[in-house]
Amino acid sequence: MASNPPASNLDLINECDSFPHPTTSPQAYHAYTTTLYHLRVAAHPETTLGYILPDVAAVLHNLPDWEVDDESIPRTITLISGSNEAARSDVVARTTEAMRMTGHFKVLEKWRNELYPVYGPPSGASKKKELLFSMERCAAPLFGIVTYGVHLTAYTRTTGADGKDEYKIWVPRRARTKQTYGGMLDNTVAGGTATGEGFFESLVRECDEEASLPEELVRSKAKQCGTVTYFYIRNATAGGETGLFQPECQNVYDLELPSDGSVVPKPNDDEVEEFYHWSVSEVREALGKREFKPNCALVILDFLIRHGLITVEDERDYLEITTRLHRRLEFPLA
Amino acid sequence: MASNPPASNLDLINECDSFPHPTTSPQAYHAYTTTLYHLRVAAHPETTLGYILPDVAAVLHNLPDWEVDDESIPRTITLISGSNEAARSDVVARTTEAMRMTGHFKVLEKWRNELYPVYGPPSGASKKKELLFSMERCAAPLFGIVTYGVHLTAYTRTTGADGKDEYKIWVPRRARTKQTYGGMLDNTVAGGTATGEGFFESLVRECDEEASLPEELVRSKAKQCGTVTYFYIRNATAGGETGLFQPECQNVYDLELPSDGSVVPKPNDDEVEEFYHWSVSEVREALGKREFKPNCALVILDFLIRHGLITVEDERDYLEITTRLHRRLEFPLA
Repeated sequence: MASNPPASNLDLINECDSFPHPTTSPQAYHAYTTTLYHLRVAAHPETTLGYILPDVAAVLHNLPDWEVDDESIPRTITLISGSNEAARSDVVARTTEAMRMTGHFKVLEKWRNELYPVYGPPSGASKKKELLFSMERCAAPLFGIVTYGVHLTAYTRTTGADGKDEYKIWVPRRARTKQTYGGMLDNTVAGGTATGEGFFESLVRECDEEASLPEELVRSKAKQCGTVTYFYIRNATAGGETGLFQPECQNVYDLELPSDGSVVPKPNDDEVEEFYHWSVSEVREALGKREFKPNCALVILDFLIRHGLITVEDERDYLEITTRLHRRLEFPLA
Repeated sequence: MASNPPASNLDLINECDSFPHPTTSPQAYHAYTTTLYHLRVAAHPETTLGYILPDVAAVLHNLPDWEVDDESIPRTITLISGSNEAARSDVVARTTEAMRMTGHFKVLEKWRNELYPVYGPPSGASKKKELLFSMERCAAPLFGIVTYGVHLTAYTRTTGADGKDEYKIWVPRRARTKQTYGGMLDNTVAGGTATGEGFFESLVRECDEEASLPEELVRSKAKQCGTVTYFYIRNATAGGETGLFQPECQNVYDLELPSDGSVVPKPNDDEVEEFYHWSVSEVREALGKREFKPNCALVILDFLIRHGLITVEDERDYLEITTRLHRRLEFPLA
């Protein structure tokens, strides 16, 4: 049986950052953004907060709290009820709960009871970002809002015979029973950040829950190294409806562990099957086989790039990849 | 005398990455890109290679090797002579030389006798990038082509009393007599990469020329850590005509030097006045005072972000800055 050719690094990016780019595919981008409905709130009528598919928009027609405009350019769905965060969040909760009750949307079957934040444009002299409302996590792709998370790569580093650094990366395999991407490879620690939780605090919590990493070590040694951002259009591997929109912003952290093996990640719940301690070539082989969850592949590529383990000399698409890992999204951010 | 308020990190980005973004300023972007002339070559009639101001386009009217279309959307200037790289480069050399002779363009007074590459879209099964032609360095902003370079940050790292890393960064001050940005702060080593030169090889050369850093050390210890990309519209500080376009792609390198001071950068020509060995807070103060050359400020910000010295917790605009340092350009890249 012939095996598939290995994925290039750019293939991995294209599979995760799949929404067309306005700079390089202006026609496709225009076609998408004029067909979709732009999510807005009455207080910021010019600011798009997410993209909604026409199929989903159909369900929001004739609801009292929402105004759907099919004729405007772009088409819009505006939350017209609620003049502050709490009131808007209540309306959104009622709407998403009602959508769940219809049983129409498969993604809503994975209800998490976790609220994710939606921000408005910077305002006032302080340029503070306003929290407009929160929304149940599993409904986020129906409204195409930006979601946030933290991804950490734990690794060890030793000096090789040639005097160069030799890296080994801790890679978990997701439990085969997990609802999404079961059995795929992941980043050492990764999770979503809910409303009201600080990014670093959510990292500390996830490091304990997912990898049994001691809090004190994480607080003193985990280093934020930037972000990875992309705009994913859900396909069959994500489960649930396909074609939904997931613009995501991941805060990226590195954690160098002692090379003597005195600290190693261990599964702490049933989400992780096993942790591997892999060389860079083992990691790259698994990338080529598409074994990583799509967005985790991007975080690994960012790690390899930041540590000089992929360079412009050995990667044909380097200059494209380094920009694609940091997509500028068209929505207000946290 | 009142001093100016310090620049925020986002101010520094906005001053260097000043061309409007299509995602967040679609109207301004559209206004620019429909007013400008799009540089093309006959072999790739759909691919824009750079942006040309109407003032510059006027000079290219009625030249035999170029076809100017004022009526198309977008407006185009197409190089119609030359069917291969050498022939196109000859035509471009004749054109830029003729433009220089008129004495009309101030930027052409700084003729460098250095050729910069212009690439076409990836082609064929190998997705190889085709070198379309080369152009004299100082003419690049008149045609708005992407230029490439290498920027290295040399630093030392020690462990502070709190167990955290303490960084000191080597920062040169440009000679006051330098034609551009005289007296401003720079990255430890930085330079443009000409046609035919590899990025890493150009880095090794510049490390010797600008900072007397030993070749063997640079080859074994300098690490590529990604790129910084931005789209600059030249203003008065750049010298010459204002409003010209400079989309740039900088390969970014780190070089950790021994903390015992056994290797330190030293000026090797008259381009650098002095090297400072500054703490992070000294560097940040100089950034706030706009003492860095604009694009070098971005490379320093990228360094501080990659090393966890700026985080999402202490920088209001973190999530915007991390994407803005990696702008996706609309032109084919090397």
